[in-house]
This record gives sequence, structure tokens and C-alpha cells, in this order.
Amino acid sequence: MANSYGKIFKLTSFGESHGKSMGGVIDGCPSGIKIDINLIQKQLDRRRPGQSKVTSQRNESDKLEILSGFFNGLTTGSPIGFIIENRDHKSKDYSNLKSAFRPSHADFVYEKKYGNRDYLGGGRSSARETVCRVVAGSFAQQILKSIGVDIFAFVSSIGSISISENIDKLNLDNIDNSIVRCPDMNSSELMIKEIEKVQKQGDTIGGIITCIAKGTPIGLGSPVFDKLHADIGKGMLSINAVKAFKYGFEQKDISSSKGSEVNDIFIDNSGKTSTNFSGGIQGGISNGNDIYCEISFKPVSTLLMNQETINNKGEKIIIKAKGRHDSCVVPRAVPIVESMMALTLLDHYLISKSDKL
Amino acid sequence: MANSYGKIFKLTSFGESHGKSMGGVIDGCPSGIKIDINLIQKQLDRRRPGQSKVTSQRNESDKLEILSGFFNGLTTGSPIGFIIENRDHKSKDYSNLKSAFRPSHADFVYEKKYGNRDYLGGGRSSARETVCRVVAGSFAQQILKSIGVDIFAFVSSIGSISISENIDKLNLDNIDNSIVRCPDMNSSELMIKEIEKVQKQGDTIGGIITCIAKGTPIGLGSPVFDKLHADIGKGMLSINAVKAFKYGFEQKDISSSKGSEVNDIFIDNSGKTSTNFSGGIQGGISNGNDIYCEISFKPVSTLLMNQETINNKGEKIIIKAKGRHDSCVVPRAVPIVESMMALTLLDHYLISKSDKL
Amino acid sequence: MANSYGKIFKLTSFGESHGKSMGGVIDGCPSGIKIDINLIQKQLDRRRPGQSKVTSQRNESDKLEILSGFFNGLTTGSPIGFIIENRDHKSKDYSNLKSAFRPSHADFVYEKKYGNRDYLGGGRSSARETVCRVVAGSFAQQILKSIGVDIFAFVSSIGSISISENIDKLNLDNIDNSIVRCPDMNSSELMIKEIEKVQKQGDTIGGIITCIAKGTPIGLGSPVFDKLHADIGKGMLSINAVKAFKYGFEQKDISSSKGSEVNDIFIDNSGKTSTNFSGGIQGGISNGNDIYCEISFKPVSTLLMNQETINNKGEKIIIKAKGRHDSCVVPRAVPIVESMMALTLLDHYLISKSDKL
Amino acid sequence: MANSYGKIFKLTSFGESHGKSMGGVIDGCPSGIKIDINLIQKQLDRRRPGQSKVTSQRNESDKLEILSGFFNGLTTGSPIGFIIENRDHKSKDYSNLKSAFRPSHADFVYEKKYGNRDYLGGGRSSARETVCRVVAGSFAQQILKSIGVDIFAFVSSIGSISISENIDKLNLDNIDNSIVRCPDMNSSELMIKEIEKVQKQGDTIGGIITCIAKGTPIGLGSPVFDKLHADIGKGMLSINAVKAFKYGFEQKDISSSKGSEVNDIFIDNSGKTSTNFSGGIQGGISNGNDIYCEISFKPVSTLLMNQETINNKGEKIIIKAKGRHDSCVVPRAVPIVESMMALTLLDHYLISKSDKL
Repeated sequence: MANSYGKIFKLTSFGESHGKSMGGVIDGCPSGIKIDINLIQKQLDRRRPGQSKVTSQRNESDKLEILSGFFNGLTTGSPIGFIIENRDHKSKDYSNLKSAFRPSHADFVYEKKYGNRDYLGGGRSSARETVCRVVAGSFAQQILKSIGVDIFAFVSSIGSISISENIDKLNLDNIDNSIVRCPDMNSSELMIKEIEKVQKQGDTIGGIITCIAKGTPIGLGSPVFDKLHADIGKGMLSINAVKAFKYGFEQKDISSSKGSEVNDIFIDNSGKTSTNFSGGIQGGISNGNDIYCEISFKPVSTLLMNQETINNKGEKIIIKAKGRHDSCVVPRAVPIVESMMALTLLDHYLISKSDKL
Repeated sequence: MANSYGKIFKLTSFGESHGKSMGGVIDGCPSGIKIDINLIQKQLDRRRPGQSKVTSQRNESDKLEILSGFFNGLTTGSPIGFIIENRDHKSKDYSNLKSAFRPSHADFVYEKKYGNRDYLGGGRSSARETVCRVVAGSFAQQILKSIGVDIFAFVSSIGSISISENIDKLNLDNIDNSIVRCPDMNSSELMIKEIEKVQKQGDTIGGIITCIAKGTPIGLGSPVFDKLHADIGKGMLSINAVKAFKYGFEQKDISSSKGSEVNDIFIDNSGKTSTNFSGGIQGGISNGNDIYCEISFKPVSTLLMNQETINNKGEKIIIKAKGRHDSCVVPRAVPIVESMMALTLLDHYLISKSDKL
Repeated sequence: MANSYGKIFKLTSFGESHGKSMGGVIDGCPSGIKIDINLIQKQLDRRRPGQSKVTSQRNESDKLEILSGFFNGLTTGSPIGFIIENRDHKSKDYSNLKSAFRPSHADFVYEKKYGNRDYLGGGRSSARETVCRVVAGSFAQQILKSIGVDIFAFVSSIGSISISENIDKLNLDNIDNSIVRCPDMNSSELMIKEIEKVQKQGDTIGGIITCIAKGTPIGLGSPVFDKLHADIGKGMLSINAVKAFKYGFEQKDISSSKGSEVNDIFIDNSGKTSTNFSGGIQGGISNGNDIYCEISFKPVSTLLMNQETINNKGEKIIIKAKGRHDSCVVPRAVPIVESMMALTLLDHYLISKSDKL
Repeated sequence: MANSYGKIFKLTSFGESHGKSMGGVIDGCPSGIKIDINLIQKQLDRRRPGQSKVTSQRNESDKLEILSGFFNGLTTGSPIGFIIENRDHKSKDYSNLKSAFRPSHADFVYEKKYGNRDYLGGGRSSARETVCRVVAGSFAQQILKSIGVDIFAFVSSIGSISISENIDKLNLDNIDNSIVRCPDMNSSELMIKEIEKVQKQGDTIGGIITCIAKGTPIGLGSPVFDKLHADIGKGMLSINAVKAFKYGFEQKDISSSKGSEVNDIFIDNSGKTSTNFSGGIQGGISNGNDIYCEISFKPVSTLLMNQETINNKGEKIIIKAKGRHDSCVVPRAVPIVESMMALTLLDHYLISKSDKL
């Protein structure tokens, strides 16, 4: 398995949802940087279950404990080890799922790959792992902030409901005024109703998160394999339930456009362009304009309704999830998206330090 | 810069289009595998300019020369060094572009990042680099073929024209019967006309390539960061002009769907599912069904028409490309897409050898 | 910083001796392997202080807690997160060392490199970090044992006292019958006396550990940069206080020998040779004979006697260590040497799985 | 196989001695650095056979051809591809060795590992590969020179003959006045005679190279696994025929010394110490004093005399090498040692750029 992300600023995570704790190590964090642990906890709270009526009512306090690499409010340059206890893990009831292969879950492939399956909680396939990404991502986000980079993510679609305002007119301060994290307050209301409707049906629904990074320095990313958007794309596609990634500020679909319609014209030699179809990245390298991408999530596979499937003997069975599950994970995924953006940008920032001697 | 792709089966490429040759090293290729060099040359020919009326009329014979790691038709386990001469590089005339920052090209960011710019041919940002990917990808494709994996890519959209047949009804043997590499022959005709129309305008057009891998073993990919689709996505997004990636067999848009509509039901314990919205990958791990993804290309940024831009003194200028340029690169990108799929799948296949002792 | 070791079987460690706990993540451990936690604890006990009269009398129980990746006695294929509490860390008194740069310690370079210094316990330069290597190394050692590889390390010199018996006549079962871990019981007695003598002087003494791996499969290691002995050498040189590494069974000094004196003659086509000057590795690749190497340790730099040095203002000062320090770390380093050998061999074993398809 | 060296400044090499050419790619070279190709050629000439009466009389002109990444005398930030033709490869006569496993060569392990063997020239086990290290190392050496680092290597022992002068009294300008590259001219004469004597016997002889780096910045290296000396040690141990590595300026054997005898006392807060037993590295991190290490080479395994061995059927045979072989490779290895030192120091220099933000 490969449980590390990043080349210089590198997160290695561990833990299963049924175990004692989740945790990780951040290696390669520069020394002497001030970090506010409260802001990390705030990001964890934006991700945790039980935060509003549109999320699962499970109760995980997700309290961060830092074990190393941090002293007197500053990073020391040493690896930052951390753990987050799994408080709620004992109350789960998975006995009915012990032998079932749930549709569109990792149960089947996990058992084939590893010869065992963690029926208690999905093993490493559980989205609980993302709690570690938020810890490391929040470190990265604060470090980037200190060099002028601001990262925003918000929900732009839930099911068939999409933001109606022009995206660059949105008031991003509104993101957390909406429990679905949609800063267009009209759309937000409709999204909440959509989730509640689906919830009552025992069904689930997908959606889209838009992520914007402002203030990114010019020159991050490499021109060949490690194009900045390719690495951002990989980071986003590695989030549970993500099915698609695109970048570029698009009022129109770029693949069906003509070059004369979507080329971005330079305004001056700061690199500012009159349009931003490039999404802040040209030839794989950041150009100083806003980085702009969209991440599509499928609906959660766990349904509170009967579904046909097979068990590990190949017999057809009917399953129905019990308990407290999310009907839509997209609002909770907002801090995870921010984290993957932050991890990727900071890593490329540190990599770019050796572009010149 | 980072000019390597893969962890075990690793390609490192080098070369600029104006230099003497492109080249690369394939490290980590297992020994004793029979490779047909003619098949590699065939893939290079599918990629090269001048192959049909819808591509650039530049003339690059793209003759592969293998320098090491290959003996008597077999891989030896040693690194495979190779070069491809740049025959046509002297005739290019870029003098008018020496100081211009072309819109939506890498010129501006390249000069900021490296303090120099390869005005002779775009340096490492030139799509000529992909010739090396096709060499390595073709090695990988042949190796995968020997373990039962078949990779197909084809053009499914050009501009607003998309395949009209149901995708799983397509006759994939038709791909190379179409100069745009669209196996739906009716759509193919329309696409050719669309490109010719745009060509006459001096404009360019984007499109979409669909890639399918059949026969992939169960168990490739990791459940956390190195999800199989995340690594495929990164590979595809690293191809020049790619703006978006999605995976999963989609008749409908998955992010606006309900879970009950898009969960894939297992048919039997071979892992076969009745639908394939998962695109052959669940929880980041291949499940034995066809891998299925779509890659969106923007229109080429080089236009044979006047465009406003700035030069490196920040002055506004008008540029217009001269010479032989592609109006649509999507048909030529088909073997590149196949190559990135092959490189990624083979690497994960070799990685998966240590899942168990 | 770089706190990871290995390519496929990879340990990432964290923690400082003054913090709450040490810990690490083992990524890439194959699934389904039986591990005896008691044997890991036994290796930790061989390393810990306070185990005999020749070691520091500090009291660290070094109790291992595994947080993930291990279930019902078997590895699961998930990353193995673990911690070991630092029980004794509060009682340390380092106030007199807060501003001093101790001779031949990392204090000076650490402060220059990171802009801070962990005067409480040496930060990542403390040998306490090796506790994590022993945990991961013990996992590796047990896995190797299951495929027939046995690793032994023992003390062959302390100061000027060296093993007097011919090394291949030694009874390796005697290693732990000696508190200095020297299986030649006569030499063992002399070594104990030597350490006690130095201890009384407040001084310290170096020594040599010999490490032997029996039953290594043929074919581990690569012919160029990642020669097996180069990677073993790096692992050993990364242990605190190690100054030199050599490999090969040497009755004579190989660099002053003639080829006709030290070439190993093959006996049969199993690869067995009549002599083993090659130390089980030819051209960087294991040949099935015993792997054999020697690791030299300098004397501990912390002395219980007055030493001249400077403080961080550049002023000359006199320091003298207080408390419980080792006069000779070599006996305690035996399980660490075994661990680095095991980590390196297992990693190369997993890498070698892709030599052929 | 693993044919790359370095993390940021990374060499990937390819080629076999019987093939058309050797070659490599240097990835991660910062842009805008002036490189004198003549100085690289000079280093290649110091390594090549046929340069004096004490080396093999084979004739390889070792002419470097750079294919990319270098323009108008400056590095561009793009990967530097290069090749060196194998001119002399056709004249070799290895037919008598086709089925023999030569003693202390890689023939046996290579055939077991890869299922094939390059009897034409040892495949990747041939020391001809080091020509690529010298190219990349010479780039690194020139870059380091520009930041004040000077690297010297010289022969300090051949067989039982060692430098008689105190090492820090040596005039390093004399190195290339000696065909064995020993700057102590009296010892040099004795070494030449020793090699000539061995040569007449058809035998071979080993020796030791000392390497010194002056002007290294403080702070290179990491405190745990990637200690600077561990990485230098790995680089040196990866050179063909190297059997041992030690670091530290040693008039006495450090492992048999007491702490009070070998601790280095700081003179002032520049980090200068009165002695340099630490060899310029403390706790794995450079301290600004001269880096100092010794590398021991075994005698060449190819002898011009009869040796007993087996063939690949397990039959006992007698072999005797024909043609032009080195009786002692140590003098030719001097630029290789310098190269591995340069590659390692430059890589750590670039890594250290992200110690702080």
C-alpha cells in the first residue's frame, strides 16, 4: 500500500475506523513556522460527522493530539506525529455486513487484494482516513497563508441543483453561513431541501465542490509529468467518492470550444489575463491568476434501503444499512478538498526552491 | 523539474524539440519479455505529425533507436535507453516569437520559473515530449497484453460532435479506419468536416478521448492516496492540453445522480457487475470489470489568426502563427492516452506483487 | 528532514526523547503474516537502557503499542502505526546544557540548520529514535525468518579487545549469555572489565559489531546504485555513532590484498564458494552465501568529566554531563544493527519480486 | 533495477559496455548555471582506460555528447540527456567466457536474478557504467565550486604501501603529477612499482582513496536516516569494487578509542574544531569543517592467470582472462569518488533549501 502523499512536504497516514486511533506523520515541514492548533481543530470540526442536520449523526469529537515536531507554538523541522482517537468505534454494529460485499464499496476488491477484509469499518477504504489529511492540510494551509496564498472551497452543486450566481460574484465569506457550504444562499436553501428529500427516501446524492486558490506564486509545477494541475487532480481524485476533476474557469465546456474562444489574453507583464480559462495554470505551471478547479463526487454507496448483492460465498443476498450514515458527503468534504489543494501547493512551493541555485 | 513517471516501471524522459534528439530511460522493466519493436514504431506513427489531412503537415519520421536493455528481442532487466532524432528541427522559424508571450502557452511561466525560455520550440512544454511516452507506453502495453490486458482509446467528441452510438456497441476494430480515430463511422465523418472547417478559419478545436482497459487483474491500486483512478487521472492530466478527467461508465452524470441509480450490483463472485458506473475501480482498486475513463482536451492554443498579447517588455503586440500547426490534436493524442494508461496499469501491477509475501 | 527508510517496506519514524512518545508507521508490509509481538518486545528489551551494569541506568520500559495494521495476530496490509511512551522524560535535567554546544554532538549543527535546538534531549539526533527502528526491524526480521533468513549480530570488539576465536567457530547461541553480547566468552569477560574501567574514569569507549545474515535468497540487490551492500551500508551508517562499515569475511585486509588471494572460488552451481571474502554479495547482488559485515562505533560523546567547549554566544565554557549515561553503547546497539539489516534485506526481497514478470 | 541516484539532483544512467553507447539523464539541475564542458571531458579523461602505463591499454575516447538541457553554455532547468559512444566494444573477445561464472564477478548472480547474462561485457555490472557518474558528478562538482565547495580525492594506499606524510601536510596540487594520483611523491613511486610488479605476475591489487570536501556549508544532511555520511557512504559503496567506507579524520582507529581522546573541541562559534575526528559531520549534519572519508577497494577480480571456477552447467573449468585489463583500478577511480561526493553534497544542498520557509 502507499499511504504517503507529497514529495518534500509529505503526509504518511495510518489507522482504521474500528481501531484505537487514526494518525499520521508530516515529514518535511520547514522549521520555525507559527501554527495555530485551534485553526486545525476548526477544520476538523468542519469535516466531522454530527455537525448539522444534513450530515451523519455519529459522534466523533476528533480531538487532535500532536506527539512531536511542534514546540512552543512553532514547527521544529522534526517530523510531526499526531493521533486522533476513535471514540465512537465500539458502538458500531457491522455484524450483518461481515460476509456481504456491498455494492460499489471496496469490500470485494479489498478481500481479493489483501486476503482479509476489515468488515468492522472498511479498513483503509473508510473515509475516516481523511481526518489525517485535514490535519496535515491545515498545517499546509496556514503555512501557505503566511506567504500570501488563500484557499477556498465550496459546494457548487448538489444533485441537479447548481449555483445560480456567476461564480466570481460569490461572497466567499458566506461559505460557512450555509450548512451545505454553498455561498449562494438561494441555492444553499434548495440544496438543503434536496438532501432532506433524499434522506427521507433512504437514498443518497452526489455533488460538486469548486476550489479556488488565490495568491499562488508564479512558477509552481513542472512542465512534463508533474504538471501542477495533474498533481492537484491526483490529490482530489484520491478523496473518497470523487469521480471527476477539471480545472480552468469555465462558463463553457472547454473541450467543445474553439481556440479563439478560450485563449487567455495577457493584460500586462504581471501575468494577469483578461479571462482565466487556464485556471491559473499554463503548461502545468502556475501563472499567478486564481487557481480554479471542480471536483465531482458520486452519491454515497451506503443506502438505507434494500439492495441486492452477493456475499463472500457468491450467494445472492439483500442488504440494508443500519444506523447513522450520510445522505450526502459533499458539504463535509469541503475541508478535505481545501487540504488536498494546500498539501499539493505547499509541496510544489518547496520543490520550486531548487529551480534556481 | 520532475521528468519521471512511475514507481517501479519508471520512464524518465529528456529532450527539446529544437535539439538533436528526444529520448528517455525505462527503468524497472522486468527481464525476459518479448517485445516487437515494429509495434512500438506503429504507435509512434499513429502519434506523429503529417499522417493525414487533419494533422499538422510537419514531417518527423520519429524513428526509434534503442541503446540498451534489449537483446535478441527480449528485455534484459537493464534500463532501456532510447532516442528519437528531431529531423525537422532546423527548418522551424520561430524568430517572430522570440520575445512574445503567446496566449495560453507556457512561454510566460517558463521564463519566470527558469529565467530562460526556449523560444525555439517551447522547451519541455512542447508536446513533442510525448513521443517518449509512446515509446515507454508501447513497451508497457505489450507487456500488459502478455498478461491479458487490452487497452483501447478512441475519439468520442470533437467540438460539439459526439459519438451517437451507445459506447459498448462500438466496433473498436474500426478505430484506425477513421483518420480522427472515432470508431463510430458516421460521427467520424462529421468530426473530419468539423476539423476541416475550423482549419480553414485558422482556428482550433478541442475534444474528448475515451479509454478502456479490458482484462485488468483484480487488485491493482491502493485504497488511500494511490487509488488506481487517481494515478490514471494524474497520468492523463499530465498530457499536454488535457483539462479534465473522469472515470466510470456514465450514461448519466454521476455527481447529479442518486446512490440507488448508480450503485453497481454484483452478479457473481467473479466480481462482474450488472452496470459499470464504477468504471472497473472500487475504492481505488481494480475490480476486474472494464476500466473506463474520459479525457477532455482544450483546443490548441496556437492559432493561424491574429491574436493580441504582450512581449517580455510588457508591450502589447499582435501575433499570428506561421507554418504547419495542428487544428485539432485529439486524434494524434489517442496513442498517448493509451500509453499513459499502460504505464500506470503496469506500474500498479508490479507494485501489487508485494501485497502478499 | 527525511525520516523514512526503505522503498517498498518503509518505516517512517517520529518523536523526540523529551516528548510524550516515540512512534512510527510501517508502510508496505505484506498482508497475512503472523507476527509475535512478544518477540518485538524482547528486541526492545535488548536495546533499552537499564538492562545490565554496563548500560545506562535510566529506566524506560519501552512498551510497544500498535495502533493499526495488525489484527488477530496477522498483518492486514494496512500501514502499521505504533507508539512507545517516553516514561522517563520528565526527570531529565538538561538545564545546564541549554546554551552549550557539546563537543562532537549535533547541538551546533542542529541549531544552525533548523534555527532551534531541542536542548531537552537532542531532538531527532537522540539515539532514542532507534527504538522505532527496532520495532520495524523486528517485524522485518520475523518476516524474513518465515522465508528462511536468520540474522545475527554480536559485539566483536570493545576498545582494543577483540574476539580471539575464529569467527566462524563462534557459538552464536552464546550472544545473549554475555551482557556485552559477545559470544566468545573469554573476550566477553575482558570487554566487561574494559567498560567498567572506562566507566570509573567518566570516560567512554567504542567498538565493533559484526552482523551475519544466513539463508538470504540469491538475487537481492541491484547492479548499479542500489547494490545490496551499499544499501546495508547506508542503513548501518545511519545508526547513531557509527563511523565505518565494511563487508566481506576478512581474515586479512582486502584493500591490501592481491586478487589471487581473495577471489572466491565457486564449489558448485548452488553458488557456494570455498571462501567468502565477497561476504555473500557479488556485484551488489546476494549470492546465497552468508552476508557478512562489520560496523564500527565511536565512543559516546557525552563524558562524565570536564570538557572545554563553547556556548551559543561563542564563549568558552566547561561542561560535565550529569546523570545516567552509557559508557559504551555497543552492546545495546546489537538489536539496532539486526534491525537495519532486516529492514534492508526485506525491502530488497520485495523489490526483487518484479525482476521478472 | 534501480538506476537512479539522488533525490532532487538525480542521475539515471543506462547502457552496457558492448552496446552502442552509455548514457544518462540528469534531472533536477537548477537553471542558469554556467558549465564548462571541457572540465567534464577532463574528468572523463582521468577515468578512461589507456591513460598511463598503470592502466588497461584499451582505447575508449569517451567523448561526451549532450542532447538536451544545456544551451549557450548554461543549464536550462530541463533534464540533461547525454550519451558516450562505446567505440571499442566490437573488438572484445569474450567467447571463452560465455558460459563461465568468473570468480568474484557478478556473472553467477546476474544470471540467477535476470534469467540472462550479458557475457559480452558484464551488463550493468561492468565498471564502464561509472562513465555516466563522472559526467553527472562533474556537473555537480562545477555547481558546488560556484558556491565555494572544493572536492579532492587521491590514492592513499596501494596494497601495503600507504602515504607516509601526514595527510593535512599533503600538497593536493600534486595529485595529477602522479600517474597513480598519490600526492605524496615518494609513496607514489613505490605504488607505481607495486602495480608494475603485480602486473607482471598477472595478478591484481587493491587500495584506498581518500576524499576531502572543503568549504561545505553548515547544515547539509538529516539527523536520522539520511545522515550526510550515510548517504556519502552509500554513494561510495555503490562504486564497483568498493568494500569499505569510513569517515572522520583519523590518525587513530576511532572504534578502539576513548571519548576523551576523540571528541572535537569547538574553537569558536563558526563551528571550527581543534581536531576533526568527526570528519566535518556531526549527528549526520555537516559542520563546516573539512569532510573527510576513506574508501577501500578490493583487487580487480579479473586475473591474467589460471583460476578454477565452474560454468553454467556446474562443471569445473579453468579460466584465464585475455586482453587488456587493469591490474589496479584505484587510480582511475579517483574521479569517480569525486563524482559520488559531488552528487551527494549537491543533492543535500538542494534538499536543505526547504529546511526553512
